[in-house]
Amino acid sequence: MPKDMTPDTTIYERRESEARSYCRSFPTTFVKAQGSEMTDADGNTYIDFLAGCSSLNYGHGDPDMKAALIEHISRDGISHGLDMHTDAKADFLEAYEKHILEPRGLDYKIMMTGPTGTNAVEAAIKLARKVTGRRNVIAFTNGFHGMTLGSLALTGNSGKRNGAGGAHLGDVTHLPYDGSMGDGVDTLQFIEAMLENGSSGVDAPAAFIFEPVQGEGGLNAASDEWMQGVARLAKRLGALLIVDDIQSGCGRTGTYFAFERAGIEPDMVTQAKSLSGYGLPFAALLIKPEHDIWKPAEHNGTFRGNNHAFVTGRVAIEKFWADKSFESELQSKATVLTTGLQEVADLIPGAKLKGRGLMQGVDVGSGELAGEICARAFEKGLIIETSGADDEVVKVLAPLTTPDEMFRKGLGILLEAARDVTDNNNKIAAE
Amino acid sequence: MPKDMTPDTTIYERRESEARSYCRSFPTTFVKAQGSEMTDADGNTYIDFLAGCSSLNYGHGDPDMKAALIEHISRDGISHGLDMHTDAKADFLEAYEKHILEPRGLDYKIMMTGPTGTNAVEAAIKLARKVTGRRNVIAFTNGFHGMTLGSLALTGNSGKRNGAGGAHLGDVTHLPYDGSMGDGVDTLQFIEAMLENGSSGVDAPAAFIFEPVQGEGGLNAASDEWMQGVARLAKRLGALLIVDDIQSGCGRTGTYFAFERAGIEPDMVTQAKSLSGYGLPFAALLIKPEHDIWKPAEHNGTFRGNNHAFVTGRVAIEKFWADKSFESELQSKATVLTTGLQEVADLIPGAKLKGRGLMQGVDVGSGELAGEICARAFEKGLIIETSGADDEVVKVLAPLTTPDEMFRKGLGILLEAARDVTDNNNKIAAE
Amino acid sequence: MPKDMTPDTTIYERRESEARSYCRSFPTTFVKAQGSEMTDADGNTYIDFLAGCSSLNYGHGDPDMKAALIEHISRDGISHGLDMHTDAKADFLEAYEKHILEPRGLDYKIMMTGPTGTNAVEAAIKLARKVTGRRNVIAFTNGFHGMTLGSLALTGNSGKRNGAGGAHLGDVTHLPYDGSMGDGVDTLQFIEAMLENGSSGVDAPAAFIFEPVQGEGGLNAASDEWMQGVARLAKRLGALLIVDDIQSGCGRTGTYFAFERAGIEPDMVTQAKSLSGYGLPFAALLIKPEHDIWKPAEHNGTFRGNNHAFVTGRVAIEKFWADKSFESELQSKATVLTTGLQEVADLIPGAKLKGRGLMQGVDVGSGELAGEICARAFEKGLIIETSGADDEVVKVLAPLTTPDEMFRKGLGILLEAARDVTDNNNKIAAE
Amino acid sequence: MPKDMTPDTTIYERRESEARSYCRSFPTTFVKAQGSEMTDADGNTYIDFLAGCSSLNYGHGDPDMKAALIEHISRDGISHGLDMHTDAKADFLEAYEKHILEPRGLDYKIMMTGPTGTNAVEAAIKLARKVTGRRNVIAFTNGFHGMTLGSLALTGNSGKRNGAGGAHLGDVTHLPYDGSMGDGVDTLQFIEAMLENGSSGVDAPAAFIFEPVQGEGGLNAASDEWMQGVARLAKRLGALLIVDDIQSGCGRTGTYFAFERAGIEPDMVTQAKSLSGYGLPFAALLIKPEHDIWKPAEHNGTFRGNNHAFVTGRVAIEKFWADKSFESELQSKATVLTTGLQEVADLIPGAKLKGRGLMQGVDVGSGELAGEICARAFEKGLIIETSGADDEVVKVLAPLTTPDEMFRKGLGILLEAARDVTDNNNKIAAE
Repeated sequence: MPKDMTPDTTIYERRESEARSYCRSFPTTFVKAQGSEMTDADGNTYIDFLAGCSSLNYGHGDPDMKAALIEHISRDGISHGLDMHTDAKADFLEAYEKHILEPRGLDYKIMMTGPTGTNAVEAAIKLARKVTGRRNVIAFTNGFHGMTLGSLALTGNSGKRNGAGGAHLGDVTHLPYDGSMGDGVDTLQFIEAMLENGSSGVDAPAAFIFEPVQGEGGLNAASDEWMQGVARLAKRLGALLIVDDIQSGCGRTGTYFAFERAGIEPDMVTQAKSLSGYGLPFAALLIKPEHDIWKPAEHNGTFRGNNHAFVTGRVAIEKFWADKSFESELQSKATVLTTGLQEVADLIPGAKLKGRGLMQGVDVGSGELAGEICARAFEKGLIIETSGADDEVVKVLAPLTTPDEMFRKGLGILLEAARDVTDNNNKIAAE
Repeated sequence: MPKDMTPDTTIYERRESEARSYCRSFPTTFVKAQGSEMTDADGNTYIDFLAGCSSLNYGHGDPDMKAALIEHISRDGISHGLDMHTDAKADFLEAYEKHILEPRGLDYKIMMTGPTGTNAVEAAIKLARKVTGRRNVIAFTNGFHGMTLGSLALTGNSGKRNGAGGAHLGDVTHLPYDGSMGDGVDTLQFIEAMLENGSSGVDAPAAFIFEPVQGEGGLNAASDEWMQGVARLAKRLGALLIVDDIQSGCGRTGTYFAFERAGIEPDMVTQAKSLSGYGLPFAALLIKPEHDIWKPAEHNGTFRGNNHAFVTGRVAIEKFWADKSFESELQSKATVLTTGLQEVADLIPGAKLKGRGLMQGVDVGSGELAGEICARAFEKGLIIETSGADDEVVKVLAPLTTPDEMFRKGLGILLEAARDVTDNNNKIAAE
Repeated sequence: MPKDMTPDTTIYERRESEARSYCRSFPTTFVKAQGSEMTDADGNTYIDFLAGCSSLNYGHGDPDMKAALIEHISRDGISHGLDMHTDAKADFLEAYEKHILEPRGLDYKIMMTGPTGTNAVEAAIKLARKVTGRRNVIAFTNGFHGMTLGSLALTGNSGKRNGAGGAHLGDVTHLPYDGSMGDGVDTLQFIEAMLENGSSGVDAPAAFIFEPVQGEGGLNAASDEWMQGVARLAKRLGALLIVDDIQSGCGRTGTYFAFERAGIEPDMVTQAKSLSGYGLPFAALLIKPEHDIWKPAEHNGTFRGNNHAFVTGRVAIEKFWADKSFESELQSKATVLTTGLQEVADLIPGAKLKGRGLMQGVDVGSGELAGEICARAFEKGLIIETSGADDEVVKVLAPLTTPDEMFRKGLGILLEAARDVTDNNNKIAAE
Repeated sequence: MPKDMTPDTTIYERRESEARSYCRSFPTTFVKAQGSEMTDADGNTYIDFLAGCSSLNYGHGDPDMKAALIEHISRDGISHGLDMHTDAKADFLEAYEKHILEPRGLDYKIMMTGPTGTNAVEAAIKLARKVTGRRNVIAFTNGFHGMTLGSLALTGNSGKRNGAGGAHLGDVTHLPYDGSMGDGVDTLQFIEAMLENGSSGVDAPAAFIFEPVQGEGGLNAASDEWMQGVARLAKRLGALLIVDDIQSGCGRTGTYFAFERAGIEPDMVTQAKSLSGYGLPFAALLIKPEHDIWKPAEHNGTFRGNNHAFVTGRVAIEKFWADKSFESELQSKATVLTTGLQEVADLIPGAKLKGRGLMQGVDVGSGELAGEICARAFEKGLIIETSGADDEVVKVLAPLTTPDEMFRKGLGILLEAARDVTDNNNKIAAE
């Protein structure tokens, strides 16, 4: 597309709220996306290492999902069906049972919540409070669980919390996540001290909720021991264990669920982002059958049956999770990623790798530096973002299906970008 | 499809949460839908007077939207783009500006929130609190605004509120909606008495939020005078006016926005349900430019840019709202509806009509009777539901595009169902 | 005492918090008080129509209480005994049972709370929540119940509420007090409409709490019918009825309890102010025996057994409430008061009488005018204060024991003060 | 008094609320008290090692205070004066300024709050929120600050918290007190980790509040370093430092204020209990002048000017704090106490000493054992109570003025009681 055909973007300034954000980091208009690449209106192609913040684990427009979706639409399949029974929903549930739950020996009821991660989180904490008759929920430092009031109360980031405009963010106690107090400090000790003292002032919890790897919080990965310790403590206290696997799930850390490696069985698991496989809005809450005490419609929502998402979500499961081949590919890709990121880290004094599996990044020590690297990478054709309390982590969330060559190419761009920025900063410092 | 090919539905009992609800009223599996009809796995066809709770105002699978959506998918148009600029979004915004805002002399910024109504409501109250520096929000009896914690606090229904499991539903004052205290009682007088007395204990409000016609609350319609009175009071108190037009908007009550007839200009308007036109998850918050003080990403969400919904939503606007013809059709359809419902009401002592435009129903006095009528209607091929605090209102939310003949046919089924039930009840009473 | 011996008052500016208030209205140093008179350091004597805000219903330093107190102190009677058994406490309880409860056919357990009214209120709402398992408490416009967080949440005045510095004042719904919506509007109708609609958003209440006559709120007196209506409604809803009789009790409105006239039997009654009879800190909560489910020390407090107050409080009961004579005197005194206040009201266009018994005043229409009248009265030797949302009521809270001559003299000063101020204002207006 | 003259105590069962507690541990009726002894109706005399929970630091009925109080009452001095200027108040303030503030180089405004410790605490947190514009207050494990809703939210004990009946105890974060996580664990490290991470989810605090030695929480004494660390952290975060010296103040730990030894200067200090010196209800909040931003009456209360308490409180200051002699006596008494308690501790495996100064006790490992020891001591003529989360600490709060011989006698009884109980338990175990 020649330059002069670039769409006029003043419509955004004129009509879209100031809340918009990613478009500020990637100032172009995207018109097409396939696999791990996005194309803008000028015909420029970018490698996508953001993947809809882990919503596109299988890449953009997977051809099998695409075909199934077009077929469904073409034959007037149900688009919106509230929570009525549809063939698309039944097929999804059966695939989920067969390929996700049964092979892992997991027994969950699936609640189709409103199709956003925050809605699944809200449903989870409501249910935990109903089940236990307690109000307090334990959340963790640097956790991110969503922007509606119940989820925001669980979220750590003060900027996000300020968005509540002073509304009460209550009934939550925040305790330190694994590693948050520095190397060698076992935060479980602190957590237990606060929760096992009947005079601590921390009320008995209805639930614990944590992310196995914190996406927004800076790619902090909980150790297996920590996850197990929290699970044991929850059981001891009569509280439910909720794992928020929205960003870390669907293979992102190397297994379908990010908590699998710890051998724990959460009472509830929240899923969203890559659940539809195609970037379509879809969220679900897994609930151990004994806790599924909802009355009909006690938690409801208009879009809780997104049938397009059922169609693509089923294909995603059948294509990628019917056997172990995809999972084993992830292992080797993770090694490629670690190697590539280490090269970046080596450029920057004090930088260190964060995360796990295909959810890794480099903590470069400052949000400014991380932002410069990402901006430079975009100029060179790579879409990549930061995370962390101070945006200090350059975060790679590439599609899990990114072909090896393209993956290396993307990592190469990142390395170049980091080199450009550090070289330039060194030059400035030298002047 | 012969009976013995009916899909096995035990998957739902086995794997779907007890929270599911509509599937209990309409116990069949739907496989196809077009226009105002849905078809089940046995090949039975039903007239749809529920329309995804007003999410399908233009019917199922509108052919123009369908074609545009298939074209978009086929050409690898963006599916998920976070809140990046895309051609689909630009086109939607331009259509919205040209056909919705400009003809009505309205000036709003559009915030793409998470694609559920409750998310738009949560964003609205957060913003109102930020803008005013106040916490309290005035909501109204029988109002329904969603199930996440912030919206649930605004919602009246005690069953839904109990779903919070005892979590704090605070920072909200509930006051009586128009008509809620009986005919001839002006609830504005009460509202003003509570809010204009500095010693009432009701803290100065950040905002008022109301639905022009209450969908879940029983098809209560606010008079123009009441809406104007609330708008004036909000202004006087330095509070923002938020209209929740999620169920009543997109033509449902006879105009694009349900508040247009009152000549008010809300500070914010929430939209969802029929905004995509195709039943796809999509929600937006309209914000007067002077209140759009969000920082980038201060309220965010993964699925806030559902590009499929932008595509169909644009077609919906261009097809139905580019001129006044659709709106004028709604007027005559509303008359048909009123006439049809009056016939039902005439069968039942004390029954009365509720609602406005194509959002009307009959209050039959008890939830039991209303439920029996809807169940009988379903047996006869009509999908229809109840609403109201005690489910006492038989509610018609047919697609606005339902052809006249089919509309009359559906109303005919409803009348028959009501007659069957009342005849039978009379027979039982006589025995 | 000659002028030059006036104590230096700079100590107050230097060392006492800015929160101090009455000393600003009555800028002198008091050194002595007897009966209905206070004497300052300059030897000036003032008639006291404030009576410690109804804490000195039997006047200052009643000679019998004084003698008993001195005797108790002299013989090393217990001063502070936590909540241990003491002879002083037993004697008080027996007098209370014999002269207050039994003659009125009332059966209450007495809880000695911390010796402040607000502590009794806090204990009451805690207990109501424990008994009912509900959280919401219904309080009323213009109500005043104290300044600690639980009581402040019940209080209407926005200035007082702002003192919380933004802390959450929750779990309370404020509804309109009798008469608060203007003459002829039955606020019970509104209260019932909000509480008997399961979708109103007002959660089922644990309790209702009201003052029979609102002292701080502007001497608003609830009718018997209204009190009965609230009592019936509370019973119907399974909520407890708490009467806050702190300012209106101990004879202030003409009977020992201000609610007696309505024939209601509250589930709990808060008492303080004149309970000790001598101005000593003392508060109690009356609890119907079936609701007395406290565990030992579940609500406690260091000073909950003020034995000096038990001594004087017992004398007060035996002296004034052993027979009906004191009560009948109050009736005639109230008539004197009404007559005197009517003369004041007649001077001021639009002024109207407020209150009941010896808790009456004149609403002069503005806080400024009321303040001027009180200031002028003080210059003339009368201590009197304002009340109401805007301090618009000149309030008489004379000791109930004020001799008739002195009472008339005080009312005469008030009339003169009002005349001075209105004359002067008229003069200014005429210029 | 002969046995048969014992007062009838059924009045308590009949009329006093079940909330009563100390009378259950000390089941007799007290009629007289002098110095460190209390006498019951049977003429039995008990040594008082409870001292009104540290409200009687100068013993019962100090003769100088007694004389001054009788003189004040006899000459019709003001008893109740709201917050008007009185000679008694001026004299108290001047003594306080001269003997307490000036010698310590402290500059505070004094706020006369309602005369209970909890009221001073409530005033402090309200003011801290007003001053900082923040809501969150940091309180500590095992802290006790009172029973009204604002103070209860700060309190750790779950039994006390449950008394709120489910009301919201919000706007507070509880963090670990010094020593609460075991020997050798520096809780400041945890506190700083939670408060200096902008994504911890712990909102920026308005204030920190702690007791230098936790009375109810089990005689936990904060080290000087910890107090200094909290003070520094508060300053760094822009939060106010509130020291709750209600139980630990007025000489209890060896200095007038318990925080003096750490060399910190709190922004606010709460005082009550022994402030009047005579067990009379009296509380005050010390406020650094720059924070004294109260509007007149923004926090008020009927009994905030207890003039009897001003009289005795002034004598207490002049008698005990005009020079250093009393303070130096406390040092030697504390040694006696430590020695005596060590003998008790030596009897019980695992027992350890807790506390500081004349606020010491023995943690005997279980509430049951501690209770048995106290009960046995009472039989032998000693009034003594337990404290701690599980009542596991035998706590000595003798009057600071207890003559040495009586002090040793009391400690002797305690040792005997402990021996009786442990001997008996050993005998039972051996059987």
